Amino acid sequence: MKLNIAVLPGDGIGPEVTAEAVKVLKAIGLAFEHTFNFQYGLVGAAAIDKTNNPLPEETIELCENADAVLFGAIGDTAYDIDPDAKTRPEQGLLRLRKALGLHTNVRPVIAYDDLLNKSSLKVKQIKDTNILIYRELTGGIYFGEKKLSEDGNTASDICEYHRFEIERIAHAAFKAAQSRKHKLTLVDKANVLESSRLWRRTVLQLAKEYPDVTLDFMFVDNAAVELIKKPKQFDVILTENMFGDILSEEASVIVGSIGLLASASRGDKHAMFEPIHGAYSKAKNKGIANPIASILSAAMLLDYFNLADEAALVREAVDKSLKLHITTPDLNTKYDNISTSKVGDFIEDFINNPEETNLN
Amino acid sequence: MKLNIAVLPGDGIGPEVTAEAVKVLKAIGLAFEHTFNFQYGLVGAAAIDKTNNPLPEETIELCENADAVLFGAIGDTAYDIDPDAKTRPEQGLLRLRKALGLHTNVRPVIAYDDLLNKSSLKVKQIKDTNILIYRELTGGIYFGEKKLSEDGNTASDICEYHRFEIERIAHAAFKAAQSRKHKLTLVDKANVLESSRLWRRTVLQLAKEYPDVTLDFMFVDNAAVELIKKPKQFDVILTENMFGDILSEEASVIVGSIGLLASASRGDKHAMFEPIHGAYSKAKNKGIANPIASILSAAMLLDYFNLADEAALVREAVDKSLKLHITTPDLNTKYDNISTSKVGDFIEDFINNPEETNLN
Ligand SMILES: CC(C)[C@H](C(=O)O)[C@@H](O)C(=O)O
Ligand SMILES: CC(C)[C@H](C(=O)O)[C@@H](O)C(=O)O
Repeated sequence: MKLNIAVLPGDGIGPEVTAEAVKVLKAIGLAFEHTFNFQYGLVGAAAIDKTNNPLPEETIELCENADAVLFGAIGDTAYDIDPDAKTRPEQGLLRLRKALGLHTNVRPVIAYDDLLNKSSLKVKQIKDTNILIYRELTGGIYFGEKKLSEDGNTASDICEYHRFEIERIAHAAFKAAQSRKHKLTLVDKANVLESSRLWRRTVLQLAKEYPDVTLDFMFVDNAAVELIKKPKQFDVILTENMFGDILSEEASVIVGSIGLLASASRGDKHAMFEPIHGAYSKAKNKGIANPIASILSAAMLLDYFNLADEAALVREAVDKSLKLHITTPDLNTKYDNISTSKVGDFIEDFINNPEETNLN
Repeated sequence: MKLNIAVLPGDGIGPEVTAEAVKVLKAIGLAFEHTFNFQYGLVGAAAIDKTNNPLPEETIELCENADAVLFGAIGDTAYDIDPDAKTRPEQGLLRLRKALGLHTNVRPVIAYDDLLNKSSLKVKQIKDTNILIYRELTGGIYFGEKKLSEDGNTASDICEYHRFEIERIAHAAFKAAQSRKHKLTLVDKANVLESSRLWRRTVLQLAKEYPDVTLDFMFVDNAAVELIKKPKQFDVILTENMFGDILSEEASVIVGSIGLLASASRGDKHAMFEPIHGAYSKAKNKGIANPIASILSAAMLLDYFNLADEAALVREAVDKSLKLHITTPDLNTKYDNISTSKVGDFIEDFINNPEETNLN
């Protein structure tokens, strides 16, 4: 297979972790005789620095013409704390999601057996947790009209949803549930929000088409508790943009490190793959960033093109690295100084030679 | 002191837990020679059933004329799952908060030494956690304009904030931090929301008046993680209405049971005290509801009137009940069948006779 992959490393630790994901994809390309071409584009603070624009036109074109996008991370402390910044790195990511129509964001939350003791939660509670979060990604309060009054004393954001926006991701989530444990939980705040009631109504209607899926509902405040108290009760979670942001990041505590969580963002024509963690500027260039989230995002990219054996091999390599404690400091207790690139090297070696790779 | 207290038991387990809080307040009244008068009003599903209105005019008047309001809980499964319900129990609570101008909601999150092993989190992580959450309660997306298009295909909610709404609660939060560990964390989503940027700007400005308080900022998605991973880093958290809803409920996992979390809602003229848990209709009339959150809300009521010794005695009684495992099943492992009212009785006995009370 021939694939053109646009790579947007972005800010902070983005470039470091993305480099490892590219390394892994190259190894897969070699091992399975695929032609993967990588073309790099600017986004975020990196793009602001060079072009004064968090999402240059060139980057959009690059992504539109690519088969898939591999995204690093975005954000920079300089902009984070300044509420008056004129341009923001995040605009690059948000506009890109919109430009490519990436409405369906999928975030798996899996408790690895070898990492159970790394979690903030008690082992018995999290063992065997396997949740798939479907987060709507191009609607809601992130994209509704924003206003600041002239006197600067009033500010507002609109959370708006259209039925079709809910339907397209809901279908995807129901189908995912059908291939899993047949359970779908819609998280909303339908006791207060009109937009949430539209979610509930729409999903209730669609449910008739999926009689083999058990649908239940949870208010977002309660879901924030249940995710921690009984994560195993969930199979597929479906929710709107901002609730999905909060809950999927919260869910990282189950897994032990946010440096492990991957995501796929799919639209009708395009797809993008990115770790759910942010830019973590503090960790930049220290070689301590965990590349697993980015590497597992690359595995989701392979899945997207039905390269199932390839994706499985990447995941096997990741599992092996975790089992052997070839991990960055966020997870490591056994060995010191295992750097970002060392983890990538191990996974690359494993792909080249699955039978023989061990600690080297 | 003479106090007229409006009691709104509400729905589900609300009446049961409120009865215990009233029992405790009566005991305090006797012990300290105060005259506490209790007058009861309808709210929520209970009010809809009788008057077709979740907040009858009478109830508003009762509360306006009272010195304080003791609130139970609200919500009913029948309405919860129906996105098309014409009236909702929650409207009663939301309208009441607005009618009484209860803009400042204070929610303490304290890890009790005797309950450390009840938490979903590891003991070393939560020991000594003591957080005070300031949640704005009468603004934001809960109260902004709500729309449903005629064809029913588009729904929206506006999140709007005015500078004065932010300032009044921010002052209160800064002052609270001054009397504690001098740290204030503003939680927002300023990288995406205009309203969050107004929060950040306003709070940054006010910070100049509180040079002895260290101010920091956290995005809500990240806060949802940090609350679990490192709860001890927080002193006072300040946030807007919906984020406060999600985070304060999430924080209950630290404490071991949401049945322990109390809150005070203060306005310029009125004050209301309520457990943060909901109606839990499933537990209704089973005698298993934990009355501690309601009883500790009564303690916050006493604080509000500067009845410090009285409040301290209630808290001492609660501590004692926890230490002796006189607790409902959500916390209990040692004794079976300790009911809601038995917990209240123990606390009442302790207040009547602090020196002698033990398991009876
Ligand atoms: C950077 C930010 C705008 C983004 C979001 O909130 O969507 C991030 O937190 C994420 O979850 O991908
Ligand atoms: C019942 C509901 C409207 C309410 C809220 O979200 O404010 C509750 O969850 C709370 O936190 O007091």
